[in-house]
Amino acid sequence: VRTICLPDVEAAERVGELPEGVRVLVWDATGDPPLGIEDVEFFVGRYIGKPASADALARMPRLQVLQLVSAGVDAWLPALPRGVTLCNGRGVHGASTAELAVAGMLAVLRRIPDAVAAQRRHAWQPRAADGLTGKHVLIIGAGDIGRRIAAAISPFDAESTLMARSARSGVLAIDALHDQLPLHEVVVLAVPHTPETHRLVDAEFLAAMRDGALLVNIARGAVVDTDALVAELARDRIRAYLDVTDPEPLPADHPLWSAPNVLITPHVGGGTAGWQQRAYTLVREQVERFLRGEPLVNVVT
Amino acid sequence: VRTICLPDVEAAERVGELPEGVRVLVWDATGDPPLGIEDVEFFVGRYIGKPASADALARMPRLQVLQLVSAGVDAWLPALPRGVTLCNGRGVHGASTAELAVAGMLAVLRRIPDAVAAQRRHAWQPRAADGLTGKHVLIIGAGDIGRRIAAAISPFDAESTLMARSARSGVLAIDALHDQLPLHEVVVLAVPHTPETHRLVDAEFLAAMRDGALLVNIARGAVVDTDALVAELARDRIRAYLDVTDPEPLPADHPLWSAPNVLITPHVGGGTAGWQQRAYTLVREQVERFLRGEPLVNVVT
Repeated sequence: VRTICLPDVEAAERVGELPEGVRVLVWDATGDPPLGIEDVEFFVGRYIGKPASADALARMPRLQVLQLVSAGVDAWLPALPRGVTLCNGRGVHGASTAELAVAGMLAVLRRIPDAVAAQRRHAWQPRAADGLTGKHVLIIGAGDIGRRIAAAISPFDAESTLMARSARSGVLAIDALHDQLPLHEVVVLAVPHTPETHRLVDAEFLAAMRDGALLVNIARGAVVDTDALVAELARDRIRAYLDVTDPEPLPADHPLWSAPNVLITPHVGGGTAGWQQRAYTLVREQVERFLRGEPLVNVVT
Repeated sequence: VRTICLPDVEAAERVGELPEGVRVLVWDATGDPPLGIEDVEFFVGRYIGKPASADALARMPRLQVLQLVSAGVDAWLPALPRGVTLCNGRGVHGASTAELAVAGMLAVLRRIPDAVAAQRRHAWQPRAADGLTGKHVLIIGAGDIGRRIAAAISPFDAESTLMARSARSGVLAIDALHDQLPLHEVVVLAVPHTPETHRLVDAEFLAAMRDGALLVNIARGAVVDTDALVAELARDRIRAYLDVTDPEPLPADHPLWSAPNVLITPHVGGGTAGWQQRAYTLVREQVERFLRGEPLVNVVT
């Protein structure tokens, strides 16, 4: 008998049928663990709420795999026991997150917030707007999400530049960042939050952006230095669409809420209807691979 | 000497250099015509404002080509003299109009209007939303705009069905409309306004749409029976994004403004920065084809 642990009953239902001889426990790493926790080899972290503590993970001495259903894993890294393989939910939220990036980008460029306000006043007020046609879009992060964004905006006659840690075919290295920033009218953050990307977008980064350029952050709030962004927005020089902020949730008295030319959504990138089924289909496939001794996908570390 | 006529001085500037021996007049078909109007063979209609009257066009007895820079031509048809070739601005607005269709579609699905309202209150309020992933999108109109929309939403894992007057490879015939409507969660109108498409979207069409389905109209307002749409929206059963309405502009006291689940933009589909240059580059190329006796592109009738 092999033992796996899922965060809640709904997850267990969505995972569906597992091979015979698999024992499924349910525990979200808070409160008292269920009987048999010491046998768990494969643990699935919960999506909402705080990550498991090191103490909670220490209850599972035979743990081999920690599987998350989020794309970002940074909050879980500090407690990760040595020798445990960490896998993320890459692909589960990719389409949804890329979609929100494009939704927010287009909303700002095509002035959807102004249309919403005019509609409330029953006012038919066409205003000049710009679109993506002929624009150059720098996408920092060349993973699943970044590539989907590039594909989605291509039919609007926009040109994308993909950028990642290291150069490869069709992807520039992040070293070229400060040369590339002034060449692009839209800059999209689609990177994981790591020590290298922590506050990547600082005052110098923002100053290198073109007048009127649009910053899109659907990655993690801490990839941006919020104070520097608020200061640059206050100059009325650039625009921003943010699905993530630092801090998060954004307190009601934070100046970012009413900065000019900014659209904020409350970290809803990956959370569209249907994500749970995609997530737990991934989990079932990973458990099956694990039981058969096959290589796992989405291995982060 | 061959004579062409452009609607204003800005158009003449944007058209740029024409072959030697071409005389360029400027007239927008209102007020007194300039000297030499009777020699005009190629006339470019203005983009904003009313179409030329039959009387105005009768001032140009040698007219061979009426070139518009809009995709829609219906307002110009009644006054079109016999034997004059009518060309439209297909491709000039295609990317921009497809982009607005996707912007509005995603804004409704991802609840951007709710985010705009919450931001005004400085409230971080994540709400459940649906995205395109796994959805089926019926695009009525398989021209440049419809195809761009299909390509743009494919990276979000949506499946598109294109539909046109007659079936061809990858395109269903409009005859299948009422069978197809219940199979799609999003329906996009990207057809020209013609006698066949006039009020295509009537009460029966709307009743065939799925619960919660989204209607997107970036075509012409009169493709939809507005009263029927208002009635169906009032049942809180479907959603709509409309860049065009009938009547237009929509009067302040019209019930569509405050119908539930509707987002309205004021007919800004094609009008992003840069369209004029695309338009008058097309005009110059058409004039050059005309002078060389080559077949014109974008011939409507």
